[in-house]
Amino acid sequence: METQTTVVSYTARRTLSTTPVRCLNVENINPYVKAAKYAVRGELAVKAEEYRVRLANGDKSLPFDSVIFANIGNPQQLDQKPITFFRQVLSLLENPLLLENKEVLRTSFGYQPDVIERAEQLLGEVQSVGAYSHSQGAPLIRDSVAKFIQDRDGFAADRHSIFLTGGASSGVNTLLNVICNGPNAGVLVPIPQYPLYTATLSLLNAKCVPYYLEEHKAWGTDVAAMHKSVQEAKAAGIDIRAIVVINPGNPTGASLSPEDIKSVIDIAAEENLVVIADEVYQTNVFIGEFTSFKKRLRELQHQVPVKYDNVELVSLHSVSKGMVGECGHRGGYFELVGFDPAVAAEIYKFISIMLCPPVIGQCLVELMVNPPKNGEPSFELYQKEYNGIRDGLQKRAFALYEAFQRMEGVECQEPQGAMYLFPTITLPPKAVEAAAAENRVADEFYCLRLLDATGVCVVPGSGFGQKENTLHFRTTFLAPGTDWVERIVKFHSEFMAQYK
Amino acid sequence: METQTTVVSYTARRTLSTTPVRCLNVENINPYVKAAKYAVRGELAVKAEEYRVRLANGDKSLPFDSVIFANIGNPQQLDQKPITFFRQVLSLLENPLLLENKEVLRTSFGYQPDVIERAEQLLGEVQSVGAYSHSQGAPLIRDSVAKFIQDRDGFAADRHSIFLTGGASSGVNTLLNVICNGPNAGVLVPIPQYPLYTATLSLLNAKCVPYYLEEHKAWGTDVAAMHKSVQEAKAAGIDIRAIVVINPGNPTGASLSPEDIKSVIDIAAEENLVVIADEVYQTNVFIGEFTSFKKRLRELQHQVPVKYDNVELVSLHSVSKGMVGECGHRGGYFELVGFDPAVAAEIYKFISIMLCPPVIGQCLVELMVNPPKNGEPSFELYQKEYNGIRDGLQKRAFALYEAFQRMEGVECQEPQGAMYLFPTITLPPKAVEAAAAENRVADEFYCLRLLDATGVCVVPGSGFGQKENTLHFRTTFLAPGTDWVERIVKFHSEFMAQYK
Repeated sequence: METQTTVVSYTARRTLSTTPVRCLNVENINPYVKAAKYAVRGELAVKAEEYRVRLANGDKSLPFDSVIFANIGNPQQLDQKPITFFRQVLSLLENPLLLENKEVLRTSFGYQPDVIERAEQLLGEVQSVGAYSHSQGAPLIRDSVAKFIQDRDGFAADRHSIFLTGGASSGVNTLLNVICNGPNAGVLVPIPQYPLYTATLSLLNAKCVPYYLEEHKAWGTDVAAMHKSVQEAKAAGIDIRAIVVINPGNPTGASLSPEDIKSVIDIAAEENLVVIADEVYQTNVFIGEFTSFKKRLRELQHQVPVKYDNVELVSLHSVSKGMVGECGHRGGYFELVGFDPAVAAEIYKFISIMLCPPVIGQCLVELMVNPPKNGEPSFELYQKEYNGIRDGLQKRAFALYEAFQRMEGVECQEPQGAMYLFPTITLPPKAVEAAAAENRVADEFYCLRLLDATGVCVVPGSGFGQKENTLHFRTTFLAPGTDWVERIVKFHSEFMAQYK
Repeated sequence: METQTTVVSYTARRTLSTTPVRCLNVENINPYVKAAKYAVRGELAVKAEEYRVRLANGDKSLPFDSVIFANIGNPQQLDQKPITFFRQVLSLLENPLLLENKEVLRTSFGYQPDVIERAEQLLGEVQSVGAYSHSQGAPLIRDSVAKFIQDRDGFAADRHSIFLTGGASSGVNTLLNVICNGPNAGVLVPIPQYPLYTATLSLLNAKCVPYYLEEHKAWGTDVAAMHKSVQEAKAAGIDIRAIVVINPGNPTGASLSPEDIKSVIDIAAEENLVVIADEVYQTNVFIGEFTSFKKRLRELQHQVPVKYDNVELVSLHSVSKGMVGECGHRGGYFELVGFDPAVAAEIYKFISIMLCPPVIGQCLVELMVNPPKNGEPSFELYQKEYNGIRDGLQKRAFALYEAFQRMEGVECQEPQGAMYLFPTITLPPKAVEAAAAENRVADEFYCLRLLDATGVCVVPGSGFGQKENTLHFRTTFLAPGTDWVERIVKFHSEFMAQYK
């Protein structure tokens, strides 16, 4: 039936009423949906899931006994435990009847008074987590977010500029929908990048204007490269409207210096662009300290107001990453800085069509930005769990990094932040030819072979973009143990030997 | 600043670097966002929320002492209590550590063994509600949905055709994004309708092709009107791709007969359209019995296969409505029937960009479609709560209906289903003139005055579409008590006297 549909023309389809065919086929749906690419959950992920099911059903024919999902930053799918304080509060929000017997909660389940107090506060605000909230998010929760930003940066924030979201992805979707005003609109996107950006720009039929990150400067920004991208895009008639920065970087794991951040803000000021700062990995920083774009912008505005006063910035954060790792809850927020209130009102209208973000996810945002404090009953356990996760991630990052250093033709930047390493791989010409014979790019070929041989699922660099004639893959360092790392090392050496 | 921005031209904006202005203003954002209308959360809702805050802060200057949000189907914001079984299970999913002391859960909190068993089953499937699931939703949960559909309709269903969503709204957004392939694409939408449809079509720059429902036939479909809309749209060069049906109706409250459903499927078969059946109110039926589009289509396919075999249908459901009323959890699903697998694959790619629907909302979908059964420990309480909500809604619907019958110039169809009444109001010419003097349509003027005088917030008919020269408003019947109904009656009589 599918093949028939593709050859019957539109007019024919309407007149041949005796042989009805489907209305929709892959040639006549929205072409921008068809054009969008999103590799993180593509062929490799589907195959990995098939292997997982086969193993679960007792299949002994595979050369590995477990699938390692290193393709996606999904901490609680692997080893990371949720933070107890968060989940205790959420359990009370889901069933407030538990609050009718606080003494038992305490004695039998270890619920501390601050758990109960927080649950009661949040219930007082949202009434029921089963009710719609304000489309922008519950006001009290937005107040907590504002206070968190203020404490983090030392500059004021307020609830009216904060929009709670269903994960950062839905925030990015909202922002690009509002900003992109036609096929000529362009957005500067770092390459490599998390493919949410290129996919959403495809859906909107807007232009992705790539700017390449400097692998050999620890994946930092390169001012000259950014200017070159801007000039080329303008020459091609593109109206560049925004610049995306992912800091700490995905897939690169880089953490930008205050100087790098200034260079992005400079370009935004000079070229009149909105800065979209994806800061979902802000607590996943191993080296140095996270500096927010908001803080840097405010500092620059204090120093040189004329130049920076009209820069528009939006910063995104999420409960999915960091030591929280609660991606299944779909919680997040963005803060608008320097936006025209009339534009903010259009953003509000846009999100109100989808009613509101998940309310339990909103409550989790509140817990993330306002965790137990020193002296409060839940603090000690919270801190222990938080630090345990942080130290574990750092240890795994460096163990993986060290393994990569042992591998022939693999070069990797030192881990700085986020949840990923993004090594360069140099493959022998015969491997590249073998890939071409299968109509695949070489890094995809490599990753498929890795999965088939070891059960380890990573994402080829081509899914994120990379400089021509370079090959990479992205792997998370969330999986526990070192067995899977050794599987990669062994596979790699066999692969290299086979195609030498 | 805003006024300056609108008068500086694009070129000027780029060259006047000494007086920088913002990049974004309301004239240069995505024009389709600007054009979209969504009245349910518009001016009236914002004003109602302001009144609520004033009352909460002790303001005594208002002529009412409470705000009644009858503008939105938000059951748990008003009076509806969540169903205990659902929330007990969800509390365990949020904090699985509670399962370490099952005896206390039982003796102190009344958690029955089937609550614990279900929580363990769901945790076995999703691992953690904080982890991303399969983008289409957890497989086991989709199995439960398939079984529910099969039991409801008597026709097979399977997990591969089911997509879990973040509420039905996000499902509609997905479907219209895939189906609408350009500015010529049209979708038949009932008028009056829930404005999600027109707003999303605006965002996609696709054409809304209205077909008017017959108020005097209890808001049923009118085959002649549908054919007329189709012919007019085709003559205007529109490629109609789908027909939307909301059954039971929003805002109309109508429940379609099997004959009405057949007439929609007939048009889809004849005109080669996708049927989008919004069936989120399927359990909110007071008169007769709900018939699903899937069931009706399968019956017709058995009877006349040649005609109906290639009809594509998608049916949407949600945890937000019915006796569940859990809109804050953003859970739902859609089932594809008769779709080309290659198109389904594109739908999968589209949703995978947003990763997955909220996992706790997915679990709530499972509980909704697979509630306690007769003989199971939680059944008695579940049934009591479920029937209590159902009977309460029916009682409130008829009480409101009777109040409308007492009001001069108000005509209302007998309640049949959903959560709304949508009465016609006939206003005196002087009221229409007074509205025009304020640049408002008359029903909006009426609803604003109603809110100012009584604190009761309803939505003007113009927010949903209505036949020319008719006026309506939509009100939910979720609010408890009769005081607010009497407020409307009193206001209406004073309003009519004032403008006589």
